[in-house]
Amino acid sequence: MPIGTELPHASRRRFVIGVSLAVLAALGGARSAAPQPAAPAPPASVIDDLVAANRILANEGVVDGYGHVSVRHPGAANRFLMSRSMAPALVTAADIMEYDLDSTPVDPRGRTSFLERFIHGEIYKAQPGVMAVVHNHSPSVIPFGATMVPLRPMYHMSAFLGGGVPVFDIKTAAGSPTNMLIATPALGHALAQTLGTRPVALMRGHGAVVVAPTLPLAVFRSVYTEVNARLQAQALGLGGPVTYLDADEARMAEATISSTINRPWELWKAKALGR
Amino acid sequence: MPIGTELPHASRRRFVIGVSLAVLAALGGARSAAPQPAAPAPPASVIDDLVAANRILANEGVVDGYGHVSVRHPGAANRFLMSRSMAPALVTAADIMEYDLDSTPVDPRGRTSFLERFIHGEIYKAQPGVMAVVHNHSPSVIPFGATMVPLRPMYHMSAFLGGGVPVFDIKTAAGSPTNMLIATPALGHALAQTLGTRPVALMRGHGAVVVAPTLPLAVFRSVYTEVNARLQAQALGLGGPVTYLDADEARMAEATISSTINRPWELWKAKALGR
Amino acid sequence: MPIGTELPHASRRRFVIGVSLAVLAALGGARSAAPQPAAPAPPASVIDDLVAANRILANEGVVDGYGHVSVRHPGAANRFLMSRSMAPALVTAADIMEYDLDSTPVDPRGRTSFLERFIHGEIYKAQPGVMAVVHNHSPSVIPFGATMVPLRPMYHMSAFLGGGVPVFDIKTAAGSPTNMLIATPALGHALAQTLGTRPVALMRGHGAVVVAPTLPLAVFRSVYTEVNARLQAQALGLGGPVTYLDADEARMAEATISSTINRPWELWKAKALGR
Amino acid sequence: MPIGTELPHASRRRFVIGVSLAVLAALGGARSAAPQPAAPAPPASVIDDLVAANRILANEGVVDGYGHVSVRHPGAANRFLMSRSMAPALVTAADIMEYDLDSTPVDPRGRTSFLERFIHGEIYKAQPGVMAVVHNHSPSVIPFGATMVPLRPMYHMSAFLGGGVPVFDIKTAAGSPTNMLIATPALGHALAQTLGTRPVALMRGHGAVVVAPTLPLAVFRSVYTEVNARLQAQALGLGGPVTYLDADEARMAEATISSTINRPWELWKAKALGR
Repeated sequence: MPIGTELPHASRRRFVIGVSLAVLAALGGARSAAPQPAAPAPPASVIDDLVAANRILANEGVVDGYGHVSVRHPGAANRFLMSRSMAPALVTAADIMEYDLDSTPVDPRGRTSFLERFIHGEIYKAQPGVMAVVHNHSPSVIPFGATMVPLRPMYHMSAFLGGGVPVFDIKTAAGSPTNMLIATPALGHALAQTLGTRPVALMRGHGAVVVAPTLPLAVFRSVYTEVNARLQAQALGLGGPVTYLDADEARMAEATISSTINRPWELWKAKALGR
Repeated sequence: MPIGTELPHASRRRFVIGVSLAVLAALGGARSAAPQPAAPAPPASVIDDLVAANRILANEGVVDGYGHVSVRHPGAANRFLMSRSMAPALVTAADIMEYDLDSTPVDPRGRTSFLERFIHGEIYKAQPGVMAVVHNHSPSVIPFGATMVPLRPMYHMSAFLGGGVPVFDIKTAAGSPTNMLIATPALGHALAQTLGTRPVALMRGHGAVVVAPTLPLAVFRSVYTEVNARLQAQALGLGGPVTYLDADEARMAEATISSTINRPWELWKAKALGR
Repeated sequence: MPIGTELPHASRRRFVIGVSLAVLAALGGARSAAPQPAAPAPPASVIDDLVAANRILANEGVVDGYGHVSVRHPGAANRFLMSRSMAPALVTAADIMEYDLDSTPVDPRGRTSFLERFIHGEIYKAQPGVMAVVHNHSPSVIPFGATMVPLRPMYHMSAFLGGGVPVFDIKTAAGSPTNMLIATPALGHALAQTLGTRPVALMRGHGAVVVAPTLPLAVFRSVYTEVNARLQAQALGLGGPVTYLDADEARMAEATISSTINRPWELWKAKALGR
Repeated sequence: MPIGTELPHASRRRFVIGVSLAVLAALGGARSAAPQPAAPAPPASVIDDLVAANRILANEGVVDGYGHVSVRHPGAANRFLMSRSMAPALVTAADIMEYDLDSTPVDPRGRTSFLERFIHGEIYKAQPGVMAVVHNHSPSVIPFGATMVPLRPMYHMSAFLGGGVPVFDIKTAAGSPTNMLIATPALGHALAQTLGTRPVALMRGHGAVVVAPTLPLAVFRSVYTEVNARLQAQALGLGGPVTYLDADEARMAEATISSTINRPWELWKAKALGR
């Protein structure tokens, strides 16, 4: 809902907290009033995969100096893990931080957080089945968010787009022009509402958000949304009607392909981590 | 022919076997009822070239984490060689497996097979002169498979497209929506029928299949189909009529160029294998 | 103003000097009549950053064998630093030279200067707040300078384009055809007038000039002008109306994003300098 | 002139020799009847630059596994130097061969020659000022050779296109369909006539030929013809009128830029030769 309209009581409290956090965030590190206990340390493999995801998304051209990826803490559903604010290509294990679902860092130790961490926290709140979130400025996708052309699945690899790709317009959500950033819980909540239960939403004049029940699948979906956008633009450029996967094809292909994603995941890790 | 319609006796038996194999395949490894004797081990050079072909196709951007290439066994026309299900860029000699023409692995030793191995087996059955098969999601080609624009030879390097490039639509072949995969012998047979004696067929909403009487030529055709698609899209984008090779030019150029392919093959091997 | 028309006194003197300098420049090294005292040596970090900027612009595809970047001397507002005439990708600290704002090298020691150094000197004269200038043949940008389509901000990363991107036409400025180069102070002055207080101007049939109050921001703006041009061309190719950032969104986003540029700067340095 | 029409006496003799050479070429090595004395060995720097040119053209994407570049022998105007038939990226000094202007190798020692060497020999005959020739399948250029859209200079770097870029159609020259290759002196002569005194000609359904008075300039022109084609296609895609360099601008810019080409030449050598 647009910021500034009359809110019901519970939402108003969240709104006030959100604004306070935004103010504190502007000072370099967001902390809630009381210190928070950290969740049990996640397995090293979870941290390793999150570092790999950062490097893969950069190496595959989905993110550049900007963008971020998180995972819900496997041992604490009310926590998520994400790097401090830095370029994904440079992320290491020491850069991974823990957040609560208000997107407050638990133990920042002076490390700064992404202004748009609320994209992650609010989606984890809204969708209990989501275990990983990617926010990117995926280049081929951005033109679709700025035009009236809907992204649709060109082939079986992007069948997950079959349920539709909504476009979130932050000016509509906020009720007035903004700096285009999901820098408050209220805006993150609005984006989560637009996304609903779908895997991808575009953000007009900004980029996209991609979610999944596992981290490799979130990375897979980010890569193949970018590929699909490029192929769809080429198909539209050839002129004439374009045939997309129909709803049944998309549903059936998505089910089958999602069981094969370890194949590209292993390749992408090898390429991005230089092994 | 579409799955499910009334089939003549011999085809019905193949259909039943095909369905059984598909069920077994879903469990992780397809085996026929009786153990099969392996063909004599192929020369090491054949395995080396098949590994190189995998790496080349990945390095030249024709395949990504998905896609596969096979060769008919040089010493046993009823066998073919292909890697286990993995990304082509990572294939090594130890990953190469032997299959019969029903696409059943002869000695899998726990290695999983590609769901779409039937593309290879059925084409080897249908076309005795074909000695190598490539299945890819060649990016610039996919838009042509999704539109009404036929791929045609832009220049002498892709003259082999001169006989026409059919588009296989799996929904038509199956008679109903599918998961887009050639995951049964019947669908592989249908694709082989569409391909006929041509070197390339597109697969709507999926990618392409490319065949040749030698492995280097199959790789060459895969690369130059991708290049041709890119150039043709650019030519169409300039506006106005596009001049393609005429039928005689295509025939004459293909004959001449096919005798020169060792030149790019040596270059591609050097690039892909880091020598 | 076009070369050759009647000029007021002060401008006429600058015009004569400019022509003399152009003549001397053609002989391989431009010197003013009297030797100039060098400014105090700038900090090594300034030189290091200027070398890095050269390498980054080349590595990010904004410049090729041609193009140049300068910084105003931090200790002397009437001096600027730029490499000798060479490809940016090969620049080292020893190649950095000092210039006065007439674009005369202070201590060339036989090193040749860019023919178009007047782009830099004249902008530093006209805009006291500008501390860095980039001249490039940014590929995706050049088509916009040759057509009637205005570059506009596609997303928050290129919000700095929100104030408009003027196109400088050298034939109009000179009053007759030229060799397309800003090879005199008068032409540099004309370009500076077209640029005004904006961050970017296109140069018809040539490339672009990008300015900023810091060197990392000038590099950032160069990279994201190139990206924006590419995305805008793709959006226009999809057909239908394109939504750009509105004036408020651009202003607000630019303010926020400009405080984050150290994030890509660190990444770009790591990539370009191989660390 | 088309092959097969009545020819005057001198041309008929050349035609017969040409056909004989073509037949011999098909057997793997073309030799004239009598052994030819080799010209004095060229300076090592000439061979080094020719090797570098091969590697640069490949590294800059102008040639792939196919394409070739030659220089006229600096000490013998009736000889030229070119590699044996191999991918340019793999050329070394030992691969460079000497040819007479009938494109007959002087001392082949078993090394095979390019089928299209006649492009080089015939242009060296027709244009005494040409000292280097490049034949390529420059990708962005090929669509222009297949459509009615003339290549024109988008910016100062490709000003050398200002005199027009003719399109050679081999079917017209031969009078009937061919295999698209300039595989005889007569066809090479026809191509040289189409090229005239210009720096570039396109070859419909094939690629381009680029010439210059020096080898670095021939390489420069090859690279910037490719870049220009890419930029022009993008400009046309934006819609509306495109402004090219006018005839005076092209002439003036070409004169100035041609004196700067050592700058990219040094960069390209460093990149292609790994130094």
